[in-house]
Amino acid sequence: MAGGRRAGEFELIARQFAPLAAAEPGAFRLLDDAAVLGLGRDGALVVTVDAMVAGVHFPPDEAPDLIARKLLRVNLSDLAAMGAHARAYLLAAALPRGIEEEWVATFCRGLAADQAGFGVTLVGGDTVATDGPLTLSLTALGEMGEGEALRRSGARTGDDIYVSGTIGDAALGLEALRGAYPDLAPEHRAALIERYRLPRPRMGLGPRLVGIARAATDVSDGLVADLGHLCAASGLGASIEAARVPLSRAARAALGTDGGASPDVLSGGDDYELLFTADPAAAGALADIAAALELSLTAIGRMTEGEGVSVLDAAGLPVKDTGAGGYRHF
Amino acid sequence: MAGGRRAGEFELIARQFAPLAAAEPGAFRLLDDAAVLGLGRDGALVVTVDAMVAGVHFPPDEAPDLIARKLLRVNLSDLAAMGAHARAYLLAAALPRGIEEEWVATFCRGLAADQAGFGVTLVGGDTVATDGPLTLSLTALGEMGEGEALRRSGARTGDDIYVSGTIGDAALGLEALRGAYPDLAPEHRAALIERYRLPRPRMGLGPRLVGIARAATDVSDGLVADLGHLCAASGLGASIEAARVPLSRAARAALGTDGGASPDVLSGGDDYELLFTADPAAAGALADIAAALELSLTAIGRMTEGEGVSVLDAAGLPVKDTGAGGYRHF
Repeated sequence: MAGGRRAGEFELIARQFAPLAAAEPGAFRLLDDAAVLGLGRDGALVVTVDAMVAGVHFPPDEAPDLIARKLLRVNLSDLAAMGAHARAYLLAAALPRGIEEEWVATFCRGLAADQAGFGVTLVGGDTVATDGPLTLSLTALGEMGEGEALRRSGARTGDDIYVSGTIGDAALGLEALRGAYPDLAPEHRAALIERYRLPRPRMGLGPRLVGIARAATDVSDGLVADLGHLCAASGLGASIEAARVPLSRAARAALGTDGGASPDVLSGGDDYELLFTADPAAAGALADIAAALELSLTAIGRMTEGEGVSVLDAAGLPVKDTGAGGYRHF
Repeated sequence: MAGGRRAGEFELIARQFAPLAAAEPGAFRLLDDAAVLGLGRDGALVVTVDAMVAGVHFPPDEAPDLIARKLLRVNLSDLAAMGAHARAYLLAAALPRGIEEEWVATFCRGLAADQAGFGVTLVGGDTVATDGPLTLSLTALGEMGEGEALRRSGARTGDDIYVSGTIGDAALGLEALRGAYPDLAPEHRAALIERYRLPRPRMGLGPRLVGIARAATDVSDGLVADLGHLCAASGLGASIEAARVPLSRAARAALGTDGGASPDVLSGGDDYELLFTADPAAAGALADIAAALELSLTAIGRMTEGEGVSVLDAAGLPVKDTGAGGYRHF
């Protein structure tokens, strides 16, 4: 927490951020130059950072607690995708001058809620003033056994490709926020928007996939895009069937379909489900995990020789329009 | 490195940032969801984050390699102040739309130079677009033995107070950049400005102070301000003598004095020297360290009962004007 201070920064940190660090003695109430964390023996540190900018990654008037929770959750999802247990995080916040402390307090209440839910603690941070938009970055720290990491690069030809949960809800939720699907039932609309605003990182699933999944990533840029990254890292191709991509009830209602992924579903990001490959012989073990977690794990295709992602329709023909691929602004 | 991507981000990361991660296998060439770092057994992770905003922490037209190196160095200084060895870092960069790749390339050349100098490696990052000013945050990771951290809170009454190197150069360098000291010899001017632009974190000193120093911090907000933080954390006061505050030849030339710290020196930040306390019986051990590092370690005062920092002049009378205390914008 060293570096140039503006008036009031210490007080803001003490009032709003320090309580988030209370559970970790090594965070020193955010009063020292750095945090000191003991880690498990023979373990490895898993670390990732993501940044978000108001007006780019979320609307400027988004609720502060939701901004905080989404920022934390997208980072935790990266830890889950490696198979790691989440442990702690650091936050850097460039706050527009004149921001009200109540805004910061609500932001911190969001973090507090998710700390309790995910078992993580703030261990360091920095707040600075900016003349520009609110800009946040969060570094997440996790732990796992040495050599256990789930890489994107471990897939083998013939591996089944799985996704957790349901795909496309976040993209459809974003569309709904923009006014799409006006006739959708309110509970479905709310469910989709919730998935967009507040992703559910699969922290229980990730570590359980260690030793079972051969490659893994999370669905952040979009199913086809993220599977493409996994393919590139593994030096392989992939073939998935659009009809097998799992859709929620709300997504099916929005799309007016009983199955079959639309371009929005295939390309929309922000789902934060896990996407992984496994030997077909692991199907039983995965079914047990799915049952234990009450979380669906759906095989949607197979890793192949070659490169790139093929999406097949119910007739086994290539789907031409798999969306623009990857990221869209809010 | 997950999260929403804009066009070109992957290419920019691959071209400019991935080479900085090449030396750490667990960084996975920045292509996976997170980095995985093995840490020494029985060791502790030391972690800190600092953010900088163009127009707040540095002039918008500052040389990109200097921005990068200062950002890295101020974080490394926090690790040194805890007594830790630096290991790796993560970078989050919100880049103004339309920034030229050459700017980024120069920024990364600065990081590359300092990676070589400090033995650290980039292990993760995120780049996002912003409509506002360039906004950077850097998370530094270090290692040390468990239970060895140099806290701000460990000082005892009667401890000697030491600073490394010289104090005030950075503040005087900033003043020189603004046009002060017009008659100063060019080599002195250059030396002061260099200290402001490119701090020298005391990475060799910090770990050597473990077991010797009782409390430590770095001089980032200003000597009196940072000593005040150490006093508050330790529940003590401090008394220092202005005439004992070590000044560089350049600072003495600028101030036209043979000794005695001015308000600029006492309150100016950005020196990134280490400020620590030690039992008077440790003086010999500290002299040995100073000799080994060819770095001066100067006793400037003593920890006392009470609270707050007293600065005494050569006659032993309190110095009234110790500067505004703490941070100033560039």
